[in-house]
Amino acid sequence: MVQIALLGHGTVGSGVVEVLRKNHESITKKAHDDINIKYILDLREFPELPYADKFVKDFSIIENDPEVDVVVECMGGLHPAYDFVKASMLKGKHVVTSNKELVATKGAELLKIAREKNLSFLFEASVGGGIPIIRPLYQCLAANEVYEIAGILNGTTNFILTKMIREQMSFQDALDMAQKLGYAERDPSADVQGDDACRKICILASLVFGKHVYPEQVHTEGITNITLEDVEYADSLDGVIKLLGRVKKLDDGHLSVMVCPAIVGRDGQLASVEDVFNGILVRGDAVGDVVFYGRGAGKLPTASAVVGDVIDCVKRLEYKKYLCWDEGEEGYVKDYRDTSSRFYVRLKASEPQKIMESAKKAFGELRMAHRNNAPEDEIAFATVSEVREGDLEKMVSQWKQEGTQVLGRIRLFDY
Amino acid sequence: MVQIALLGHGTVGSGVVEVLRKNHESITKKAHDDINIKYILDLREFPELPYADKFVKDFSIIENDPEVDVVVECMGGLHPAYDFVKASMLKGKHVVTSNKELVATKGAELLKIAREKNLSFLFEASVGGGIPIIRPLYQCLAANEVYEIAGILNGTTNFILTKMIREQMSFQDALDMAQKLGYAERDPSADVQGDDACRKICILASLVFGKHVYPEQVHTEGITNITLEDVEYADSLDGVIKLLGRVKKLDDGHLSVMVCPAIVGRDGQLASVEDVFNGILVRGDAVGDVVFYGRGAGKLPTASAVVGDVIDCVKRLEYKKYLCWDEGEEGYVKDYRDTSSRFYVRLKASEPQKIMESAKKAFGELRMAHRNNAPEDEIAFATVSEVREGDLEKMVSQWKQEGTQVLGRIRLFDY
Repeated sequence: MVQIALLGHGTVGSGVVEVLRKNHESITKKAHDDINIKYILDLREFPELPYADKFVKDFSIIENDPEVDVVVECMGGLHPAYDFVKASMLKGKHVVTSNKELVATKGAELLKIAREKNLSFLFEASVGGGIPIIRPLYQCLAANEVYEIAGILNGTTNFILTKMIREQMSFQDALDMAQKLGYAERDPSADVQGDDACRKICILASLVFGKHVYPEQVHTEGITNITLEDVEYADSLDGVIKLLGRVKKLDDGHLSVMVCPAIVGRDGQLASVEDVFNGILVRGDAVGDVVFYGRGAGKLPTASAVVGDVIDCVKRLEYKKYLCWDEGEEGYVKDYRDTSSRFYVRLKASEPQKIMESAKKAFGELRMAHRNNAPEDEIAFATVSEVREGDLEKMVSQWKQEGTQVLGRIRLFDY
Repeated sequence: MVQIALLGHGTVGSGVVEVLRKNHESITKKAHDDINIKYILDLREFPELPYADKFVKDFSIIENDPEVDVVVECMGGLHPAYDFVKASMLKGKHVVTSNKELVATKGAELLKIAREKNLSFLFEASVGGGIPIIRPLYQCLAANEVYEIAGILNGTTNFILTKMIREQMSFQDALDMAQKLGYAERDPSADVQGDDACRKICILASLVFGKHVYPEQVHTEGITNITLEDVEYADSLDGVIKLLGRVKKLDDGHLSVMVCPAIVGRDGQLASVEDVFNGILVRGDAVGDVVFYGRGAGKLPTASAVVGDVIDCVKRLEYKKYLCWDEGEEGYVKDYRDTSSRFYVRLKASEPQKIMESAKKAFGELRMAHRNNAPEDEIAFATVSEVREGDLEKMVSQWKQEGTQVLGRIRLFDY
C-alpha cells in the first residue's frame, strides 16, 4: 500500500481523485501496488463527498506523516505550492505536479533537490494536459539531437483563433463565447497574452536543451491584436494563424525561444489542430517531425497525466528518475531582435508604391497578400526570405515616422 | 562502459550505428554510461566501413560473451531472429528489437522470459517507426481505461491512398511510383494486403489490453480493391479512405481487431495524416482522443526509436521493466462477423430502385453517395446506423445471387 497526499481539490485535483477511484483496479495492477489517498489538502470544506474524511487544512500534517510516500500537487500558482513541494521533498517524499508555473519558474532547483534526495519529481501534466509529451521527449526521443519544438500549447487561444478562421467571428465575440463555454477564465489575460503558453515552452525548452529557460527570458506576444483582416490575408498566403510556443537551437549554441501568433501552412500538421486541442511538433535529427495531439487542458485529461505520473512513481519508489536540467543563465536565450523569421506585414499607407519599394529594398522579394474589399490604401505582403527581427522593427518605426500605419505584423513559420 | 551487440546491418541496423556514432556525446550523457557496439552480426562483408572490425558471422560469439549486456535485434523476420533473441535472454542479456513480426508472434513468450530473468525486452521501434507510441501507451496513459486504438500504421499504403485521393492516380500507378521512390518493396504484398499493419495492431492490442492478439486472429483486408470511384464517393460522404488497424474493447470483454480500408471524416485527425506518415489515435476514458504522428518507417526514424530503447535499457540495467502481457487464447478476438460498423456499398444493378428498397429494409436509413459521370446502373450509399458484418455479408451474397454486382464495400469509422 502506497499512501499519497493530494494538495488542492480544484478542477485537476478532484479529477485525480475521480480517476484513481474509477480505474482503481487496473491502476493497482499497473502500479503493482495499491494506491491510497490518505490526505487531501484544501482550505474549503467538502462535507458532501464520500471521501470527506480525507480533507485537512494544515500542510504540516502531511509533511510530518512518514507514511506519505508521494505528494501530488494540483494547487497551481507559485506560492504556497513551491514551499509545500520543496518541504515535501526535503522530508523524502516524491512529488508529482500539474503546476506549469511552478516547473517553469523553479524546475531546475526542484529537480536538483530530487536528485540529491534520490526522489522522483514528475510533471507530465504541466504541458499539454493529457498529451504524453514530457516522457516521450526525454525517453523515446533521447537518441535525437532535437533542433526545435513548436506547439499550440494553449487551448483557449486556439479555440478563439479557430472561431475567427472558421466562422469569421471577431476576437471579442470568440473570447466571449470561450468564456461562456468555460474555456476561458473571467480574466483571460494569462491565456490571450501568451503567458500560459510561455510557461509551457519554458518547460519543454529546459527539458530538451538541458538548461533552465525562465519565462522572463522569452519574448511573448498574445493574440489580442489579431484581426479578421489578418486571418483573410493569411488565407491568401495559404496559411492559418496559430499561437505558437517555439524553441529552436541556434548554431552558436544559444536558444531562440518565443511565444507569438504565427502563420503556418494550411496543409501542415499544426494547422489541423483546432478548437481547444493542443498539438506539439518536435523536430529531431533522426526522427524527423513528430506531432503529439490531444486535449491540452480540462479536468480528466490533466488528471490522466497526473495519475500516469503517480503510477510511474509508485512503480519505482526505490528507483530514481534521471530527469534533470541545470539552472539557466543570462544571455542563454538570444535576444529575439537578433533572430530571424519570415514576416507578414499589413500597412495603411498614403503612397503604397513607395512603401513597397522600401520594403523590397530592405527585405528582398515579397509575396503579396490579398483580401476582399480591402481599402485602396491598405497593402499586405509576406517576405520570401527571413528578416532579422531588429531590422524589421527599425523599418517599421521608420514607416511609422513617415505617417504609415502598421496594422499587422505576424511571423511565418515553416510547419 | 556498456557493451552491446547488433544483430543485422540492414537499413535499420546501419541506422542504429549511424545514430549511436553521430550523437555519441549526448547519448552518453543521457544514458549515464558509455555505449559501445562490440559486435555486429551480419552474413555480409562490409570491409569499407570504419567499423568493419566489429562484424562477426557466428551468433555464438555474441551469445557466449558475458561482456555483452544488451542485444539489439534489427534482422527482421521470425527466424533466426526469434532463436537469437531467446538465446540472448536465456544468457541474461537485455534485448531491444525493431522486429514487428517477432513481437506480434512471440511477444507474450519473450516478455515472460524477460520477467523471469529480470531483463528488459523493449520494442518501441516495432510500431510507428520513430513515433513514440509503446512507452506513452503503457506509461503516460496508464491511468486510462483505453477504449480503442485506430492507426494509420503502414506508410506505403498511406502514400498510395494519398496519391489516389490528391492526384486521382490509379492504385497501380501509385504503387509503381511508391516502388520507384523506394517506399514499396518489389513484392509489395505485405504492405498492400495489410499484413504489416496487422502485426502492428496486434502489438498495440496486446500491450493495451494485456493479452496476446495473434495476427491470424485478425480479420485483415488490404487496399488492392480500392478504386478511384470509391475515392470519389467517399469524398461525397465528406470522408477520405485510409487503411486502418483498429482495436476496440467490446462490452463483453472481447476485442474487435481488424485491419481494413475505412472512410474517416475529412476534418478528423487521421484524415490529415498523408503520404508515408503514420498516425495513431488512442481513445481513453480520462484523456479523450490523443494522436501520435510522424514517420512510421525509414532508416533513421526507426533507428531513433531503437536507440531510445537502448538508452532506456542502459539507464536501468539493474532495474526491471514491468511491461508484460499474457498469452492469448482462442475466442478472445471476436469473429468480425459478429461486430458492427457503418458501411459504404457500391453496386451495379439492373434495377437500382429494388436494391435500394431491400437495403433500406435491411439496414434502415441510408445516405446516398455521388460521383460525376456515374453510369445509370451504378448506385452507392452509406448506412446511417451500424450494421452487423455478418448481416451485411448475407445481404451482399443475396444481391450477388440476384445478379447484382457489388463493386465496393468499405467501413465508415468515426475518427
